[in-house]
Amino acid sequence: MESGRRAAAGRNQMLLPPPPIQRFKYSKRVMLKSILDREDEGLAIVGQRVAVGGWVNSRKERAEADDASSPTRPAQADDEVLVQYVPFLRPISKDKHTIVYLLINDGSCITNLQLVMDSSMSVPGQVVTVGNSILVEGVLRGTWTGTKRVVELIVEKLLHVGAVDLKTYPLAKPQTSLPFLRDHLHLRPRFITIGSVARIRSSLTCACHAFFNDLGMIHVHMPIITSVATGSQSQRFQVTTLLDTSDQGHVDLEAFKAAVQEKRSRIKELRRGRNNKEALTAAKEDLEKSKELVRVLEERQKTATVYVGDVKLSEDFFGRAVYLSTSAGLHLESYACGLSGVYTIGPVFRADESQSGKKLAEMWMVEVELAFAELEDVMNCAEDLLRSLCYSLLATAGNDLKFAATNIDGDCIKRLQSITPRPFDRITYSNALRILNQVKDRSFLTQAVWGADLSEEHESYLADDYFENPVIVYEFPQEIKPFYARGNANGITVSAFEIIAPKVGVLARGSQKEERLDVIRKRIEEVGLPEEQFDWYMDLRKHGSVKRSGFSLEFEKMVMMATGITDAEDAIPFPRARGDAKL
Amino acid sequence: MESGRRAAAGRNQMLLPPPPIQRFKYSKRVMLKSILDREDEGLAIVGQRVAVGGWVNSRKERAEADDASSPTRPAQADDEVLVQYVPFLRPISKDKHTIVYLLINDGSCITNLQLVMDSSMSVPGQVVTVGNSILVEGVLRGTWTGTKRVVELIVEKLLHVGAVDLKTYPLAKPQTSLPFLRDHLHLRPRFITIGSVARIRSSLTCACHAFFNDLGMIHVHMPIITSVATGSQSQRFQVTTLLDTSDQGHVDLEAFKAAVQEKRSRIKELRRGRNNKEALTAAKEDLEKSKELVRVLEERQKTATVYVGDVKLSEDFFGRAVYLSTSAGLHLESYACGLSGVYTIGPVFRADESQSGKKLAEMWMVEVELAFAELEDVMNCAEDLLRSLCYSLLATAGNDLKFAATNIDGDCIKRLQSITPRPFDRITYSNALRILNQVKDRSFLTQAVWGADLSEEHESYLADDYFENPVIVYEFPQEIKPFYARGNANGITVSAFEIIAPKVGVLARGSQKEERLDVIRKRIEEVGLPEEQFDWYMDLRKHGSVKRSGFSLEFEKMVMMATGITDAEDAIPFPRARGDAKL
Repeated sequence: MESGRRAAAGRNQMLLPPPPIQRFKYSKRVMLKSILDREDEGLAIVGQRVAVGGWVNSRKERAEADDASSPTRPAQADDEVLVQYVPFLRPISKDKHTIVYLLINDGSCITNLQLVMDSSMSVPGQVVTVGNSILVEGVLRGTWTGTKRVVELIVEKLLHVGAVDLKTYPLAKPQTSLPFLRDHLHLRPRFITIGSVARIRSSLTCACHAFFNDLGMIHVHMPIITSVATGSQSQRFQVTTLLDTSDQGHVDLEAFKAAVQEKRSRIKELRRGRNNKEALTAAKEDLEKSKELVRVLEERQKTATVYVGDVKLSEDFFGRAVYLSTSAGLHLESYACGLSGVYTIGPVFRADESQSGKKLAEMWMVEVELAFAELEDVMNCAEDLLRSLCYSLLATAGNDLKFAATNIDGDCIKRLQSITPRPFDRITYSNALRILNQVKDRSFLTQAVWGADLSEEHESYLADDYFENPVIVYEFPQEIKPFYARGNANGITVSAFEIIAPKVGVLARGSQKEERLDVIRKRIEEVGLPEEQFDWYMDLRKHGSVKRSGFSLEFEKMVMMATGITDAEDAIPFPRARGDAKL
Repeated sequence: MESGRRAAAGRNQMLLPPPPIQRFKYSKRVMLKSILDREDEGLAIVGQRVAVGGWVNSRKERAEADDASSPTRPAQADDEVLVQYVPFLRPISKDKHTIVYLLINDGSCITNLQLVMDSSMSVPGQVVTVGNSILVEGVLRGTWTGTKRVVELIVEKLLHVGAVDLKTYPLAKPQTSLPFLRDHLHLRPRFITIGSVARIRSSLTCACHAFFNDLGMIHVHMPIITSVATGSQSQRFQVTTLLDTSDQGHVDLEAFKAAVQEKRSRIKELRRGRNNKEALTAAKEDLEKSKELVRVLEERQKTATVYVGDVKLSEDFFGRAVYLSTSAGLHLESYACGLSGVYTIGPVFRADESQSGKKLAEMWMVEVELAFAELEDVMNCAEDLLRSLCYSLLATAGNDLKFAATNIDGDCIKRLQSITPRPFDRITYSNALRILNQVKDRSFLTQAVWGADLSEEHESYLADDYFENPVIVYEFPQEIKPFYARGNANGITVSAFEIIAPKVGVLARGSQKEERLDVIRKRIEEVGLPEEQFDWYMDLRKHGSVKRSGFSLEFEKMVMMATGITDAEDAIPFPRARGDAKL
């Protein structure tokens, strides 16, 4: 009996089916991730039939199928088959019978899947090549690339092919660069680096929520449009419905557009006639000219001077001047003074004052506010958040990080790994100055002096060279920190901090908030803010004030630190900067 | 041996310490949730010493401590003690020796914790009452309220009390209503209903991420500022830096402000003198008058006519007209055509054209786009998302839902429960009209006719009365759906759908996107969109087009359906509507 049981158990183990492929529930295909991102890299599911889709990254051909398992098995009839292996549609010259190898990617993971198919298996008149979309069904097979065994798909049915215009397809060029792709924002998600950054960004978002969730903190959506001065006037974007510039061109564009429509109708008529080819050709040419004119006029209108005249703010949509939020911090405080532990992940907007350098005008920010918490508490929280994000990436985004380490920044994995185990050094602003002023082996463009912000080179020296890890600087001079940072007893410094990280500089900044009504009122006066706009903010001190502290973390910088991407415009899907708001 | 082991196991079980209290890592207190939201409702941790903080919701007194465990044990010296039980600070009349019962809440959960403390334990000159913040240390004790055993805290140390100005504290009034609180947005998070809605909103956000994460889909941040016409011109908010209205008042406000500063300095001087009380009083009065004047001028300026003159869009920050996004859908498609399964949770903006009814101008939206997916796939996905959100709320937000069922909408739990097990009915638009036109027992204000949107009363009839569950309506007439919805073979309808839910009407809408280049070009022409602005969008059809489908779910409506809240302004922290952008 005993041995019989044991044998059965052994047999069971041996006969266990391979771990099933996780089907994607909402389309008739399997995500490549489900095949390639398994621990067995798909090898345990060899022999299974799957449908996969994606975009073709490369194509190779080989003259003859010398492989026993070449895709010669005819397709079975199937309702799902859109375009099938139908060699009888066109004569196949036996000489031209080749095997096509396509590398495809669907963005679900960084690894490509190789499709192997017969060249005859194609949409008539169309060669499946780089940039095509493709949806196929086939059987997974193991194969060798060098010394490594990988999985590939023997295609049996071509379900769909989406054409590509190779002449204008930006990703067809072999040397596609990130700066080049910024002119093709809509197509760059297919570029391997941008896809990889997107997945890392997504992982980071989810890791943020997981971190705060585990703590029992509450996610709140903070306003984007606000009448509160959350930043300096010159940094703010105004939001209005008063500037209706759409139909204020200096010519009657609508009339030209109507003419285009008329010409179109005329062409339709001519087409119905079917016997007036010359007139049709002439009409078509005429239409093109009119369309071109409309295009030129519209282009001119875009940059035209538009007379607006008197703007009555009382007639604006909100009946007053409103702006895009430059920080959720003040509003978040209102929620912390009720829900005690809150965070938000949202966009903030800065109309960068400097003309030089491309700073993002639209950024995403993680912002946190904790009631009953002091400076040290939020320094701990920010440090733990950062560490937790690094852990999470190392655990979940391994392949994307490996790609980044190979193709963008060789240090990126090392950097994340170095952050996880070590507590960050914490130094006062004064001590940071001391360190910077004792540097002998290099000279800074600007000297680090008390009362001035640390410059980028100072930050880089501290994080990249001196500590070789993120470092927390705290206790800043009052004059370089916002009015709400809590004043220390010395009357000179405030309870504020920054986390300066390698590669990106200031990654997070925060402070204990001034909870004393009389002190905050004095500060608002001192810095010359419109007091009546801050009545609500003082109310939070007047009614049940508590010690509270918060911080914000710049999401794009986190992405840049993790991947080694050096331009923020590549760390966000649709970058906005001065003079640049494509799409 | 055997019985010995068994006994040891039993003893282990009996001697197991109570499940520990989960400390909140980033402040020196325990979240109330960690005490009250346990399965044992805190009763298993009776006897433990904790620090808790929160805001006082109610106060009661009882003349004499007839309870053996009344808080008479003196406090121990402790570094953390800010304000301690120090009766010797002021003489205590034995007659006035009372026990104070405070209900406090910290927003981490809906349940209040009762604090029991001696009236003598107080900051001198201050009575702890409604609206105060309070941070205390004490010992948990079981007590009876009616037939239910609950936990309360015997306060031993008063660590901090934040004052309240009861005369102006809006939540001190016994009959505080939601509409009243909309004028006090900054304080309303402490109001029990708003706190509860915030927690449910937070749960929903996290449940969304969990749903898509489990599917392997990628979260992307879509742009807020866009130059693409994602909605009708009249619905859009323009974003500009050209209207610098900050210092264009008709009077020189700065001079008046300077005068205020001078008067302040004068007062300081007089104070230093210390012997000129009359002059000081006069100066103070003078200051108040000047301040009032500045306030009036500033107020006037807010609604003043501001001369702007010619606006050169080429001189605007982005060098062109840009707007707040009305939908992330088009941009999301670009990411789906590369990463194949993507979603976003972000704000969208609509300058509501109608003057009547308060529609939110700033809303949050969950938007999804799937490549290689057809209409049915996204209908399935949207239905599953909705069901998953309901499941998740029922599993995690039980106490908040119970509160909503008792205080806002008795049906809300029933509604969520009814959604989870039942597949949604799916009917075509034509069949929806048929159902509506066969209704005998009521008359609609407008008849449901082909080619028109269903009205709110139609939607309500279908979801609340006929199906008593969310219902999916699909196959809409082309003219009432956006240009990108995929045309059906009949030339009349498009592959679009709506989920109409009880209580809130259209909760989600989506469509299969037109993937055929020639068809989408024709549609863009037909509806008169500026073709050159959609070149990029057509590119997504020109280069490797795939069948794709997407949908959006209105986040505020989801909150309203879950809680029964009837006004969207109470379902979002800082509502924005026509003429209304407080804070």
